Amino acid sequence: MNYDFFSPQQIHFGWERFNEVGQLAASLGTRALIISGSRSLEANGVIHDLQRLLSRANVTSELIRTVSNEPLVSDVDLTTNILHHSGIRAGDFVIGIGGGSGIDLAKACAAMVTNRESDSVLDYLEGVGRGLSLTQAPLPMLAIPTTAGTGSEATKNAVISNHSPAFKKSLRANQMIPDLVLCDPKLSCSVPPHITAQTGMDTITQLLESYISSRAKPIPQALCLQGLKLALPALAEAVEDGDSRSSRENMSHAALLSGIALANSGLGMAHGVAPALGIHCNIPHGLACAVMLPATLKTNLSVRQKEYAEITRFISPELSFDETDAAQYLIDQIQALNNRIKIPCTLSELGVTHSQIPDLVASSRGNSMSGNPREISDEELTHILEDLL
Amino acid sequence: MNYDFFSPQQIHFGWERFNEVGQLAASLGTRALIISGSRSLEANGVIHDLQRLLSRANVTSELIRTVSNEPLVSDVDLTTNILHHSGIRAGDFVIGIGGGSGIDLAKACAAMVTNRESDSVLDYLEGVGRGLSLTQAPLPMLAIPTTAGTGSEATKNAVISNHSPAFKKSLRANQMIPDLVLCDPKLSCSVPPHITAQTGMDTITQLLESYISSRAKPIPQALCLQGLKLALPALAEAVEDGDSRSSRENMSHAALLSGIALANSGLGMAHGVAPALGIHCNIPHGLACAVMLPATLKTNLSVRQKEYAEITRFISPELSFDETDAAQYLIDQIQALNNRIKIPCTLSELGVTHSQIPDLVASSRGNSMSGNPREISDEELTHILEDLL
Repeated sequence: MNYDFFSPQQIHFGWERFNEVGQLAASLGTRALIISGSRSLEANGVIHDLQRLLSRANVTSELIRTVSNEPLVSDVDLTTNILHHSGIRAGDFVIGIGGGSGIDLAKACAAMVTNRESDSVLDYLEGVGRGLSLTQAPLPMLAIPTTAGTGSEATKNAVISNHSPAFKKSLRANQMIPDLVLCDPKLSCSVPPHITAQTGMDTITQLLESYISSRAKPIPQALCLQGLKLALPALAEAVEDGDSRSSRENMSHAALLSGIALANSGLGMAHGVAPALGIHCNIPHGLACAVMLPATLKTNLSVRQKEYAEITRFISPELSFDETDAAQYLIDQIQALNNRIKIPCTLSELGVTHSQIPDLVASSRGNSMSGNPREISDEELTHILEDLL
Repeated sequence: MNYDFFSPQQIHFGWERFNEVGQLAASLGTRALIISGSRSLEANGVIHDLQRLLSRANVTSELIRTVSNEPLVSDVDLTTNILHHSGIRAGDFVIGIGGGSGIDLAKACAAMVTNRESDSVLDYLEGVGRGLSLTQAPLPMLAIPTTAGTGSEATKNAVISNHSPAFKKSLRANQMIPDLVLCDPKLSCSVPPHITAQTGMDTITQLLESYISSRAKPIPQALCLQGLKLALPALAEAVEDGDSRSSRENMSHAALLSGIALANSGLGMAHGVAPALGIHCNIPHGLACAVMLPATLKTNLSVRQKEYAEITRFISPELSFDETDAAQYLIDQIQALNNRIKIPCTLSELGVTHSQIPDLVASSRGNSMSGNPREISDEELTHILEDLL
């Protein structure tokens, strides 16, 4: 048993606890630089409420930027530049509010504004650019997730995309884990059903891939079991009744656990292929994970049957399956869930064509794929993707 | 679902990873002020190795004090005074190395040296003194546990005793959670069998009481399940074969989990009575917990049968008990473990007399007892203790 475990030092979770943001933020500093991941947060008054609550706690604030797409290199560089021109001083901290994209942008900018060896985040990303490392601590950061999905509020990386050349890569450092997380599941009630479905399947994919990862570790595994037990029955309900408090709570909690887990254990094939589907086919991250998950589970069954059975037995202790049947039951449950929440079964339905497969295979070799419990050759991955067309 | 969750931001766990202490310590500062909880750490060369490894990483160090008893108010005040006279400056941090007593002393002193509103820790303890709160951040701290017991390396309190008046109370603040934990289970191999048994039962009591606490929370419950699954089979082996690597690893990991759990969820009756048995009857903490645990489980069975059954089903999925039998099985397993590792069944065997019971009852009303899943009146507690004589 050998592991390192990193997590946010403080997590505050609960329905309507967004009201406590002033007091929590005041423990981080005196001026909040807000980066938001959704225009609807402005439209529905959440950003206004945020600034009012901060002001009441004697924290001044500036809305630096709202970017609703998955963040690009140019978004990070531009936003970092705006931060820089706001005159960074002692007592400043960043608030990232939004889904995974908004919080990733905020994390990347909080790091880039204190690390100025290059003007572009490109030079700090994994596998592209100059491979620079963070040498300075990022600005302190408060993460406020508004979707139940990536768990970015608890991870140490930010996923940054680029169009030309096309890539989706991580900025990653232990110091990038947000100092403080405020998770109010009520904020996720305004997320529409199809996004609830896609982001929720991202959570479930992260929990499953972390549990079976080649870098799986004990504390994350304990969290994955609990996350799966809560999320699997909750997701369909959250999709079908967006105001269901208990299912929103369970999904937000599971998403947070999935972030802690993946930050420590890595992921697998579904998360290996998902960025490639994003770059080459413009498929949203959660949807890509959802479509890839059943195939990922089948591909790894030969080396993780015991783990699949452990999950089934924890989730459904009343079933008395042998190991083989318990493992197969998990795969069947995931496929049934996908069907119920209307996730397509094939990549063709998402517009993927045969001619794109070589590019998809070539772009799937990142940090996530290296966590898959067994090696997947280019040839095998080609077959898997062909079968999914 | 509503919770706050606090944990050390970084945990580094593994056999012989003590060798990495220099590099880890260097991330906290440039001068280590060492507080040790055991003279044998000096005798067997661990402190010497620690100072050598620090020096190699360009971290200077001073051995401030070694106190092998459970820390007294006078120990904290004296040690804080020594720290103060060492001329605290930027770059200083504290290393606490030892069992729960040593790490508690280090945590208390790291807090007291920056909070000088009173000269004595007495004024900051719960329920005694002036009730002062910490207003300044403690010195940064690295905790290195050498026993698998209290999990103090991950908790936000330090238990401090006093003789006249007799009490055992906590200094408690969220900022007291150590910044960094280095847990090398090999360090626990030199702990003799009877201490391994007592400290190990402290861990198991903490895991069980956190799981069933009236303040139980989801993340700690996930950690408790894993901790119990690993610790219950490992403890007897660690007692009977102190060099068993896997059982020492499992116990050290379980102790760490128990610390994270109790810091967030609180405890129950066994930990409520244990300090009283320490003050009035001089019974070591772990031994007191161990003797109190079966009675605590029986007392709470009526309100926690479902939770006991959950634990049994997670630990032993192959057993197909109904809920009643699964719950009773847990209680039987704990009693059998106590018997096997030679924990006495009665308080009389530890020298407790009938005339001490009123004092024991009066001294059991602390923060731990308030976490017990149901109210225990003085009258009921009197009967429970009489039955244990």
